[in-house]
Amino acid sequence: MRAAVYIGNRALRVEDRDPVPPGPGEVQIAVAYAGICGTDLHIRHGAMDDRALPPAVLGHEAVGRIAALGAGVSGWRVGDPVTVMPLRWCGDCAACRAGHNHVCQRLRVLGVDLPGAMQARWTVPADVVLRLPEEVPLADAALVEPTAVAVHDVRRAEVRAGEHVVVVGAGPIGLLIAVVAAAEGAEIVVVEPDPYRRGVAERLGLAAVDPTSTDVPAYVAERTAGAGAAVAFEVSGSPAGMRIATDVLGVRGRLVVVAIHPDPVPVDLNQVFLRELTVLGARVYARADVERAIELVHRGVVPARELVSRIVPLSAVAEAFDALESADGVVKVLLDCQAAG
Amino acid sequence: MRAAVYIGNRALRVEDRDPVPPGPGEVQIAVAYAGICGTDLHIRHGAMDDRALPPAVLGHEAVGRIAALGAGVSGWRVGDPVTVMPLRWCGDCAACRAGHNHVCQRLRVLGVDLPGAMQARWTVPADVVLRLPEEVPLADAALVEPTAVAVHDVRRAEVRAGEHVVVVGAGPIGLLIAVVAAAEGAEIVVVEPDPYRRGVAERLGLAAVDPTSTDVPAYVAERTAGAGAAVAFEVSGSPAGMRIATDVLGVRGRLVVVAIHPDPVPVDLNQVFLRELTVLGARVYARADVERAIELVHRGVVPARELVSRIVPLSAVAEAFDALESADGVVKVLLDCQAAG
Ligand SMILES: [Zn+2]
Ligand SMILES: [Zn+2]
Repeated sequence: MRAAVYIGNRALRVEDRDPVPPGPGEVQIAVAYAGICGTDLHIRHGAMDDRALPPAVLGHEAVGRIAALGAGVSGWRVGDPVTVMPLRWCGDCAACRAGHNHVCQRLRVLGVDLPGAMQARWTVPADVVLRLPEEVPLADAALVEPTAVAVHDVRRAEVRAGEHVVVVGAGPIGLLIAVVAAAEGAEIVVVEPDPYRRGVAERLGLAAVDPTSTDVPAYVAERTAGAGAAVAFEVSGSPAGMRIATDVLGVRGRLVVVAIHPDPVPVDLNQVFLRELTVLGARVYARADVERAIELVHRGVVPARELVSRIVPLSAVAEAFDALESADGVVKVLLDCQAAG
Repeated sequence: MRAAVYIGNRALRVEDRDPVPPGPGEVQIAVAYAGICGTDLHIRHGAMDDRALPPAVLGHEAVGRIAALGAGVSGWRVGDPVTVMPLRWCGDCAACRAGHNHVCQRLRVLGVDLPGAMQARWTVPADVVLRLPEEVPLADAALVEPTAVAVHDVRRAEVRAGEHVVVVGAGPIGLLIAVVAAAEGAEIVVVEPDPYRRGVAERLGLAAVDPTSTDVPAYVAERTAGAGAAVAFEVSGSPAGMRIATDVLGVRGRLVVVAIHPDPVPVDLNQVFLRELTVLGARVYARADVERAIELVHRGVVPARELVSRIVPLSAVAEAFDALESADGVVKVLLDCQAAG
């Protein structure tokens, strides 16, 4: 079979590998689609070489069907449609003991710290697998994992119906946050310099503004009769985005830091103080978030066809990464792993 | 009578002024003591010249006795001991309508935007005055206002018994936060480079460490069996303090920004993300916080005699400001206004 492997030094290679037979407590998944995520781009850039040790099979957004069962695995049949919650926690650290195992102090992520989904057959512990409804197309269900991130972020912000919400950055996660928050009844403004991504937001019925030509805080102040937004999501990963997310908030506003900011970012703590803002970190998701994401994809709340810009064969993985890095005319790209067996 | 006036350009002057007779709805207070606060130092530095327009009588931490009543004021008698909650809100903005009038978008503070307490007779609206128990010495009660800040900060952090709390900065507010959090049953570590202030913390029974010689995150990790602190208060106003306050926290830790940071400060958002931290702004107090502060001073929970380093006559205001700026051997300094009439 074929597998997409990060071999270090910004290089990806498609290799022939033998499928890993499922051991006790494991299942083997015939991967249908694997999404490419911002984390995967970071890994290719070498930013996570301490975790994704080359050669590393990437990919943690996957759907497929059960292909084989290891010893002692029950509740599954070959052919069942599934997705994966790609987290392994220790169960024993302070975070796990406090019930927050998704931020386990020793958290390992499949596709980062452990082998990932960008291959024809993926062998994983059975307890990370979640069932998909049979009637959901697998290409749509490939958005369950990033949708679970968005569900977690919206839940962390405690978004309520009628609240004004600003989403800074309209990549896949930003757009999914906007969609999930809109489904809660919030009023959304998406902030995004890229015209293609703004166009996607507008096709989804969301207000979208260009921060390079619009005074975003003034725009939000006008929309909210001077009150400012209740919630902002920083999904751009840029200091400028963090500044906008701070500036748009009203008194007691909540700012959720979704994007990865590898370096410390200047934050206007004086505004945090003056308006008693709350800045919240949000990381991955709990199992309930994944289950809610499956439901939202199933109900068609997640506009999968608008968000999946391209589906390309696994063999085109390097070009797909390049397209996402240029962010030119793409939102989400899926790798089709079905012909890679 | 005498009044301490900020006349701009870093200068304070003690002037003769006529007392302001109380108008309808106002009371005149014979000020006994007025505390000097970090905000007053900022004002003298010219950092708030847009708000404290020279010539401005400073001071917002005051106790005294009712000296005269304006027309229509009931419920008070001359001689009643009082303190002041020095906030004026508009009642009409988004913050006020949401029930958060202490962060009113048009908030004015007595002693900053409006005439303050550093004078023999202070005329204020009757509704900012709170009654003090007769048996509390007025010099002790002068700590009610900063204690209300500490009560608000601890409440904002939702400190619970048994939690590990790190207070970065052992000025008057930092020490009061430590005392109030300890009264909630929390385990306290105070972080302070100044040996005099660390000594005060230790005399209050608090653990105190010097960040210039101790690896504070490692120290906190050891005290918490690797879990990290539940809550950190940034009361130093320095980027280094913000870094310590971030680094000491465990998963889902809460960081309250108490100090004023005029310029944007680098914040390690990657840690906010990885451990799902919450960063909270906290500003002044609500009326319930002031009432709780009166109770804590009354019960002797607030160690007023340890925290009030000096009581000096109003005429020595400039020297008192200088002593506080050098922070050498002082925590809180009170101005005695009783001889200034
Ligand atoms: Zn753990
Ligand atoms: Zn107001």
